Amino acid sequence: MMGLGGLLGRVLDRPLSLGRAAPDDRAIADLCKALLTEAGEATGLSLAKTILARYASLDDEEKRDFFMTLARDMDVNAGAVHQTIDAYDSDPTRDTYRAYAAASEPPRQELIRRLNRVPGATARLVAMRADLLRLTDLSGRLGALDQDFRHLFSSWFNRGFLVLSPIDWRSPALILEKIIAYEAVHDIAGWDDLRRRLQPADRRCYGFFHPAMPDEPLIFVEVALTRGIPGSVQRLLSDKRDPITADEADTAVFYSISNCQSGLAGISFGNSLIKQVVEDLGRDLKGLKTFVTLSPIPGFMKWLGDQDVSADLSEPDTLRRLTATYLLDAKRGQGPLDPVARFHLGNGALVHAVHAEADISEKGRKQSAGAMVNYLYDPDRLAQNHEALATHGTIASSASVRSLAGAGRRLL
Amino acid sequence: MMGLGGLLGRVLDRPLSLGRAAPDDRAIADLCKALLTEAGEATGLSLAKTILARYASLDDEEKRDFFMTLARDMDVNAGAVHQTIDAYDSDPTRDTYRAYAAASEPPRQELIRRLNRVPGATARLVAMRADLLRLTDLSGRLGALDQDFRHLFSSWFNRGFLVLSPIDWRSPALILEKIIAYEAVHDIAGWDDLRRRLQPADRRCYGFFHPAMPDEPLIFVEVALTRGIPGSVQRLLSDKRDPITADEADTAVFYSISNCQSGLAGISFGNSLIKQVVEDLGRDLKGLKTFVTLSPIPGFMKWLGDQDVSADLSEPDTLRRLTATYLLDAKRGQGPLDPVARFHLGNGALVHAVHAEADISEKGRKQSAGAMVNYLYDPDRLAQNHEALATHGTIASSASVRSLAGAGRRLL
Amino acid sequence: MMGLGGLLGRVLDRPLSLGRAAPDDRAIADLCKALLTEAGEATGLSLAKTILARYASLDDEEKRDFFMTLARDMDVNAGAVHQTIDAYDSDPTRDTYRAYAAASEPPRQELIRRLNRVPGATARLVAMRADLLRLTDLSGRLGALDQDFRHLFSSWFNRGFLVLSPIDWRSPALILEKIIAYEAVHDIAGWDDLRRRLQPADRRCYGFFHPAMPDEPLIFVEVALTRGIPGSVQRLLSDKRDPITADEADTAVFYSISNCQSGLAGISFGNSLIKQVVEDLGRDLKGLKTFVTLSPIPGFMKWLGDQDVSADLSEPDTLRRLTATYLLDAKRGQGPLDPVARFHLGNGALVHAVHAEADISEKGRKQSAGAMVNYLYDPDRLAQNHEALATHGTIASSASVRSLAGAGRRLL
Amino acid sequence: MMGLGGLLGRVLDRPLSLGRAAPDDRAIADLCKALLTEAGEATGLSLAKTILARYASLDDEEKRDFFMTLARDMDVNAGAVHQTIDAYDSDPTRDTYRAYAAASEPPRQELIRRLNRVPGATARLVAMRADLLRLTDLSGRLGALDQDFRHLFSSWFNRGFLVLSPIDWRSPALILEKIIAYEAVHDIAGWDDLRRRLQPADRRCYGFFHPAMPDEPLIFVEVALTRGIPGSVQRLLSDKRDPITADEADTAVFYSISNCQSGLAGISFGNSLIKQVVEDLGRDLKGLKTFVTLSPIPGFMKWLGDQDVSADLSEPDTLRRLTATYLLDAKRGQGPLDPVARFHLGNGALVHAVHAEADISEKGRKQSAGAMVNYLYDPDRLAQNHEALATHGTIASSASVRSLAGAGRRLL
Repeated sequence: MMGLGGLLGRVLDRPLSLGRAAPDDRAIADLCKALLTEAGEATGLSLAKTILARYASLDDEEKRDFFMTLARDMDVNAGAVHQTIDAYDSDPTRDTYRAYAAASEPPRQELIRRLNRVPGATARLVAMRADLLRLTDLSGRLGALDQDFRHLFSSWFNRGFLVLSPIDWRSPALILEKIIAYEAVHDIAGWDDLRRRLQPADRRCYGFFHPAMPDEPLIFVEVALTRGIPGSVQRLLSDKRDPITADEADTAVFYSISNCQSGLAGISFGNSLIKQVVEDLGRDLKGLKTFVTLSPIPGFMKWLGDQDVSADLSEPDTLRRLTATYLLDAKRGQGPLDPVARFHLGNGALVHAVHAEADISEKGRKQSAGAMVNYLYDPDRLAQNHEALATHGTIASSASVRSLAGAGRRLL
Repeated sequence: MMGLGGLLGRVLDRPLSLGRAAPDDRAIADLCKALLTEAGEATGLSLAKTILARYASLDDEEKRDFFMTLARDMDVNAGAVHQTIDAYDSDPTRDTYRAYAAASEPPRQELIRRLNRVPGATARLVAMRADLLRLTDLSGRLGALDQDFRHLFSSWFNRGFLVLSPIDWRSPALILEKIIAYEAVHDIAGWDDLRRRLQPADRRCYGFFHPAMPDEPLIFVEVALTRGIPGSVQRLLSDKRDPITADEADTAVFYSISNCQSGLAGISFGNSLIKQVVEDLGRDLKGLKTFVTLSPIPGFMKWLGDQDVSADLSEPDTLRRLTATYLLDAKRGQGPLDPVARFHLGNGALVHAVHAEADISEKGRKQSAGAMVNYLYDPDRLAQNHEALATHGTIASSASVRSLAGAGRRLL
Repeated sequence: MMGLGGLLGRVLDRPLSLGRAAPDDRAIADLCKALLTEAGEATGLSLAKTILARYASLDDEEKRDFFMTLARDMDVNAGAVHQTIDAYDSDPTRDTYRAYAAASEPPRQELIRRLNRVPGATARLVAMRADLLRLTDLSGRLGALDQDFRHLFSSWFNRGFLVLSPIDWRSPALILEKIIAYEAVHDIAGWDDLRRRLQPADRRCYGFFHPAMPDEPLIFVEVALTRGIPGSVQRLLSDKRDPITADEADTAVFYSISNCQSGLAGISFGNSLIKQVVEDLGRDLKGLKTFVTLSPIPGFMKWLGDQDVSADLSEPDTLRRLTATYLLDAKRGQGPLDPVARFHLGNGALVHAVHAEADISEKGRKQSAGAMVNYLYDPDRLAQNHEALATHGTIASSASVRSLAGAGRRLL
Repeated sequence: MMGLGGLLGRVLDRPLSLGRAAPDDRAIADLCKALLTEAGEATGLSLAKTILARYASLDDEEKRDFFMTLARDMDVNAGAVHQTIDAYDSDPTRDTYRAYAAASEPPRQELIRRLNRVPGATARLVAMRADLLRLTDLSGRLGALDQDFRHLFSSWFNRGFLVLSPIDWRSPALILEKIIAYEAVHDIAGWDDLRRRLQPADRRCYGFFHPAMPDEPLIFVEVALTRGIPGSVQRLLSDKRDPITADEADTAVFYSISNCQSGLAGISFGNSLIKQVVEDLGRDLKGLKTFVTLSPIPGFMKWLGDQDVSADLSEPDTLRRLTATYLLDAKRGQGPLDPVARFHLGNGALVHAVHAEADISEKGRKQSAGAMVNYLYDPDRLAQNHEALATHGTIASSASVRSLAGAGRRLL
């Protein structure tokens, strides 16, 4: 946390001001072209700063125009691609490859890389893509531009560059206010509520950060340390519970995982985050034997509505049977239909248990009649579960869930 | 320094060990193919670790074979390129672009990105390219592979991701021993000599670091704070001088700049480094008015040998005239012939003064008869000097150097 | 902040657990005696921990008993003092002095020092003295015990051991919630209000910390950067103002200073804090020319009530005259009567200006009819102002305040 | 390490410069008196700085004079002590105690506390006491002055204020060069030798630091991680050994412990250091079962010379028997005669094993004919071993050592 929120932040945030460029009244598109053609980094940095500042002052309509310019005027040149790939194919040398590599990539990728040279630019480029996603229709040419952003971000936000950092009550307020803002699963009502999630001895929170955006969590997961696997999120989060010490816990419960950056859509961090946290917790707390989620089942009620069935969901056994059936049987392609199931099972977890009366909030009742599910992360079985799902569409589950699902099938 | 050598280092270095993979006796090429085809990150990380470990155990011959496999079997597919660029060109949509993007990039780039997901992998991949440069002939296909490494590294080691850090006598010994090892201009004889370069109040050192390689400086520059512009490196470095306080200095002298990573060849950091240091020093020490180098002239004697001239180089005026002429007149393309001049003038510096008896070491005598040169970094003129050189081949210089060069021309 | 809230904290907080002492059911007074007589640190640390834990479980009555035991049973032995000082006086050697030093100090001082060996004990001992101050009458023997605490704390919390740290929106929430709790002058309503005091570019906050209590600010001062000297705290704190950049400011306004630890009563930090902040700000922001407070005048209305005068305080000029007279004329001993004036003038500041309608809060109206005062900290005059006050009772002031005070005298 | 060498260091080292005092040409003794009488901290800090600077410029003779002045002119006043202790004894109140407390302490203690307010002063005061110890005869009055220093330092360097920090190859060179300089047991020949002690996976080093002297280790211990208990320091330190990983180790060997500050003589850190390191290592490396020293026996040969015995010490069994006898039987008071034994047995360790041919250096041969001893630190028995030694003079030992000692006795 320190290294990020503190030291690095101060180093990286410091804006360059070499060269004292005169105000530049060229159009932003012209500035971008100039940035690509002028070789010098002196001019380049100053140009890049001007472009980023100019972009920040655009309104939504002007941003759309700017994106369209990038999409159209800085696209790949098909003729050059044909020509250079032929040259390389017939005579594969360093020089023919260099020509091909230059031609095959649209110039806007190099533009984005050059903009990124400005200290602090990475967060602005992520915000730029968030604008693109928010403001435009991506099915056409602009989808190609988005693809370029995504390609670059995927390389820059490579797992090897991310830093896992605990987030706790010692973390900078600057970071914590973002945790309040970004929590997507179980709302955090304010600073007192946040403290209840972070400060007790049986709570943990971890986030991924990128060194060039030290004040911005990319994704974070909230963890409860418990004895036994919990079946109710309200009980789990109750401030009336007696917190246990970390050493007393045998189970780590991932009860909320939230992405923070809409501009990084499509770049997946959750899998790595959970696995890294499982590993770190397991090393630090030798008493932990079980790593499990307490997850919503957001697609259940909608799916049930599509089935021709009348069932009394206030009856816990009925509800548990039907959710088990939903989780094991309802598919989209080879994977599970439920989006949360898709994520955890795709990571190699298995469906471990289902609970009724587990989330009695309005949202919980609405999406799953109050039911929740534990996905179990067993380090020794993650790879094979994942493999079985990817190859054969097999959904891993516990014997008791399979039995419930069988009973549920008979209700349909 | 702290953030890097310390906190981040500990976070990033921690190796993942999820999944406890059984020893894998497939060939390294097969492992690489598996890494590209299997989707799962669980398996992926473990595979990537296996590949990196396997690579580390190869001998030079096997490394050559491995590189050739990457170059040949993971190359771009010309047919797919033709087909997908046509599809995109006739119907530019997100989907046609995605297909093109996938086809236009050789699979080995994705392989390198996936290898990089392992914590600590970046330094290994840089070392892998160093092997490639050391072991192979790059004129053919292997040059294409090298181009891919360089392309990725250029994106990963973008200026926006680098951290400028002071290096001083409080820095970790782990870093300092590398400064001793990498110093390329004026040898550092050992720890005592190093202390003389770092600890006195009139010495500074700065390096660029990448957060994923916190123990490895990428490039560093050594600075002396002086009153007036020095004309002798031996006097500048003499341990008999009386150090001045930083506040007394009016001049910052860049007397040595060293690249550290042969695996990052072709990715230029020096320009950014010097400019950032000029800016930081100028902000922290208000008394500094002049930023200047004290640089070798490595190509002078060779050039002079090619001229048809007999001159008494032990005569200081003669030597200064001829070096001035060399620096202003001897060209390669539009740029100066001398490699050090090429670097500084390309950055926008100008030839400010030349000195005889300035480097009386054996190396100094041999390459330039003991002459050295000051290149002046004037923040207000960097952009225009650079521009004039890039556009017209104009080499910026002081009036006195131009006058010397004129006198030197008459000696030729 | 980092070093304190973070690294040091973690190192220092780690509790020792060597020796695994069996539960000890002796009375706390007996444990204390044992701690003083048993030489061994192994036993000692464990005993000290037991004592601190036992103390924490006492109720107020039991704490009073415990304090009385310390006061009575661990007091200085007059006979031994007489005897050892005579021996030293007649034969001043190392050995006679050692005997005297041992006899002259009550054993409870050594007890407190031994308790302090336990990591984290310092904060507990400070809290113990806060209990003493809260629960007991200090005029008798318990006052002697309090004197011993104060003597030790005065040595431990010596200025040379304190760390000045900026407190800002990057500080740990753990620290920030204490700033909200301890603010004593102008209430902070919650986290949003706190952010308004910390985050804008024209706000600063600094606190003193002790390395052994890294999570506890000892005292903090809130600073506003302004153009010109402000005359209204409501305008100064208004969230409708346009924040200026730090470079635009010419004045630093200390508008609130709060002690945090009641257990450190009588140990003065404020003087050092203000002077250090004046120095640090002056070095970092070259534009700052004026360092001034905007202070309440808490004793004014009470003093005025004791004068035989009827004046219309809603008339700004009348109010300003009378407050000036109060500040310059009303004395307690040689010093000013007003407690805030006493503090700042004692530090060497001078009465620079008085303002009506400056604090229109209920509290402000009640204590000073809304008037406030600026005390000016002029680094070049602090020593002589202080000296003149200490020696001659001279209160330093500006000419305009003296003139107002003269006019005020005529109203009395 | 970071927090100390880095952050804190920078905060604490920053010198105050408020008040810009004119050069003060009073004698140092007069300056000291002024510091005690003038109340103001503004003047006080500046005075204290002047005094410290003046002291630094004194030659040895002048330092002796200065110490004598402190000893004589700032001594305790016997008359005042008699009078105030009587007043307190007959009427124990806060006020009578305050008067007694003021009179019973010599004014030089308050002088030293006021000098310590200057940032960075603590290290200078420690050096001042080192001068006192080096330059003067302490048997008389100067011994009283030394006692005052020791009393204050004992309070300031309380275990609760010390920070245990690992020292490794990432530590600042500034710290590491002091490790080379201060190593007292087995010389470190230079930086390469130091690296061999710090960098391998089976080596550790820890030191105590005080936050106000972050660049100065107070004491440090060097540790080797081994399989089994070693019997030869040359083999232990051999750079030809194959380092094991930390996880493979079952034993931690404390093979060198060095005090660094002669000015802190008589203030014991070693006991706390070893116990804290035992605890930390035991928590971090679960495989460690045995904590043991490999210690010299510096008094053996001298003791043996005093016995009337002729024995062939080149015979390993003979040597081991006699060293066992020496360690168990040779006493000074209740404790062991051997100084190293005194230290470890006083800490609660026991004599575990003795080895011949264990230190074949010249020094090792000379002081103990090459023999060494393992003292075992068993956390569960430290308190009782210590107790038995302190109460009954019982030296704890293993059965095998007792048996050797028995055999040895028969040789005498």
